[in-house]
Amino acid sequence: MIRSNQRPVLAVDLGGTKIIAAVVVPDGKVISRSYCLTLAEEGPKAVIERLLSAVSEALVGAELKNSEIAGVGMAAAGIIDAKKGVITTSPNLPGWHDVPLRDVIAERIGLATYLVNDASAAALGEHRFGAGKGLGNLIYLTVSTGIGGGIIIDGRLYTGTDGCAGEIGHMTIEAHGPQCNCGNFGCLEALASGSAMTREAVRRMGQGEPSSIAELARGRLMDVTAEMIAVVARQGDKMACEIVADAANYLGIGLANLVNIFNPEVIVIGGGVSSMGNMLLGPARKVVKERAFKLPLRTVRIIRARLGSNAEMMGAAVYVFDQQLAKRRKT
Amino acid sequence: MIRSNQRPVLAVDLGGTKIIAAVVVPDGKVISRSYCLTLAEEGPKAVIERLLSAVSEALVGAELKNSEIAGVGMAAAGIIDAKKGVITTSPNLPGWHDVPLRDVIAERIGLATYLVNDASAAALGEHRFGAGKGLGNLIYLTVSTGIGGGIIIDGRLYTGTDGCAGEIGHMTIEAHGPQCNCGNFGCLEALASGSAMTREAVRRMGQGEPSSIAELARGRLMDVTAEMIAVVARQGDKMACEIVADAANYLGIGLANLVNIFNPEVIVIGGGVSSMGNMLLGPARKVVKERAFKLPLRTVRIIRARLGSNAEMMGAAVYVFDQQLAKRRKT
Repeated sequence: MIRSNQRPVLAVDLGGTKIIAAVVVPDGKVISRSYCLTLAEEGPKAVIERLLSAVSEALVGAELKNSEIAGVGMAAAGIIDAKKGVITTSPNLPGWHDVPLRDVIAERIGLATYLVNDASAAALGEHRFGAGKGLGNLIYLTVSTGIGGGIIIDGRLYTGTDGCAGEIGHMTIEAHGPQCNCGNFGCLEALASGSAMTREAVRRMGQGEPSSIAELARGRLMDVTAEMIAVVARQGDKMACEIVADAANYLGIGLANLVNIFNPEVIVIGGGVSSMGNMLLGPARKVVKERAFKLPLRTVRIIRARLGSNAEMMGAAVYVFDQQLAKRRKT
Repeated sequence: MIRSNQRPVLAVDLGGTKIIAAVVVPDGKVISRSYCLTLAEEGPKAVIERLLSAVSEALVGAELKNSEIAGVGMAAAGIIDAKKGVITTSPNLPGWHDVPLRDVIAERIGLATYLVNDASAAALGEHRFGAGKGLGNLIYLTVSTGIGGGIIIDGRLYTGTDGCAGEIGHMTIEAHGPQCNCGNFGCLEALASGSAMTREAVRRMGQGEPSSIAELARGRLMDVTAEMIAVVARQGDKMACEIVADAANYLGIGLANLVNIFNPEVIVIGGGVSSMGNMLLGPARKVVKERAFKLPLRTVRIIRARLGSNAEMMGAAVYVFDQQLAKRRKT
């Protein structure tokens, strides 16, 4: 028999590209895992059905029934109203406006269900099982198509008054900079994300500037990705190197802001673009040294995430464990 | 007889201009208060003696002996290493580098002594006794010669790993902006503080641009203050109005960043420059509305501080009460 405080949870990462569902036990072991494509363009209803299928598959894989599960944790991109369990808007899930995902899933599965922003979840995952294990004050930054953030204060996730704190990617660092997807101008995301780099590459190639990115993309500007930019930057392509250097500079400015504001022990950087590694993080760390105060600089380590694409899902599991622990303590 | 958890504390605000010392009881009542000029240019040794005199005077005023005091709380401007009780560097106290103020005062007074950044202290003061009473998540911003910040998370002061968190004034919001006193570029402080406004006024008058600020300052550019700019802006002086509008715009950008990062219930704005009131805060609030996410915007109130120049001193008192309460709970 499984004791109630050792029961596994269902953890879901609802991303713009794919949905991961897994059964996870409190020590972090993943018993089973399934995934499917999100196909976000088909709208909330179809996506929710696919999410439920992935969840069922994970349950079958773990040879468990609903009643043996302690709860469901879901991580999703977007501005999440945690009190109401609603995705108010999401850059990766077009057409999702004020979707009460938590209650919809809770009703269908019949278990206590939680919804948390994906970068907040990843912060929790990295803090409990990844690069920031056991630390008190941790900032997590995911640099991929967009830039998201998660905040751990005194060992606990901080999600703010409504549950939408941590939008570090939408911190303006260049007041007169380019417009961001969020409508604001000069956000960190508009200057240092994967989409910022591709936007810049496309703009410059559109003006006739030569770059071997063009060959990789077979001349189709719409197909340029941050990965392509990374590949040719490694080969010394001038334009790609400049674009990565600019992004690294802005990333460093954003990180310096975090160092001055939070005085954290560690900043953990995950997300697809962070796999550029030292090509991006080396110059960014140098900028932090030039811009932040000496005292918090002496403390902070800026390191890469460890859980890869499992961070959000693992964090969603941790979120359920923590919520239920808090509930047990209250009663 | 006074019970140990009701004993008053000595609270000190060590500012660049003046030192306030007071005896404060846990319900926030100030029993006695004394102050003197800092005369910071005379260096740490002389200032510390004046601080001790102010403390003695406050004790005499309260008709209390050292032994009847629970502890000493000191708020000071600068980058403070809270673990070590050291002012590592301070913009308002020239020549203060790595001064172990906490231990020096503790030894001289013979009481448990605490040192905290002045804006963090003001955040605590406003949270306990001022504009943010009883709220969970509060950001305090002091806009005066410089810009400082304090962070209240879930009802508790957050000072970071070394005790120097909250340097919101040194968040870059214009990557290619003017250099700040801290060495960094485009900090909020370099764009929206009193010194940013006077720098701009002096620069423009130096280029021959007309403004009635010149009359107020009797032609001496060195004597221009933010107050003068406010006075003539109220009278419709074109240059002064533009300078205040620019500062308000940048202040709004900084506030929008705080809304997106912290999703706070309230942002409390204190400091001398904030007494410009709606001339500054009106346009700043408008910028926040344009730039921040809708969900946290719906929640946040951006309001003026209530404790005026007592906020730091009151917060230093709260800091002692809280530290000693935590200590009692541990034992």
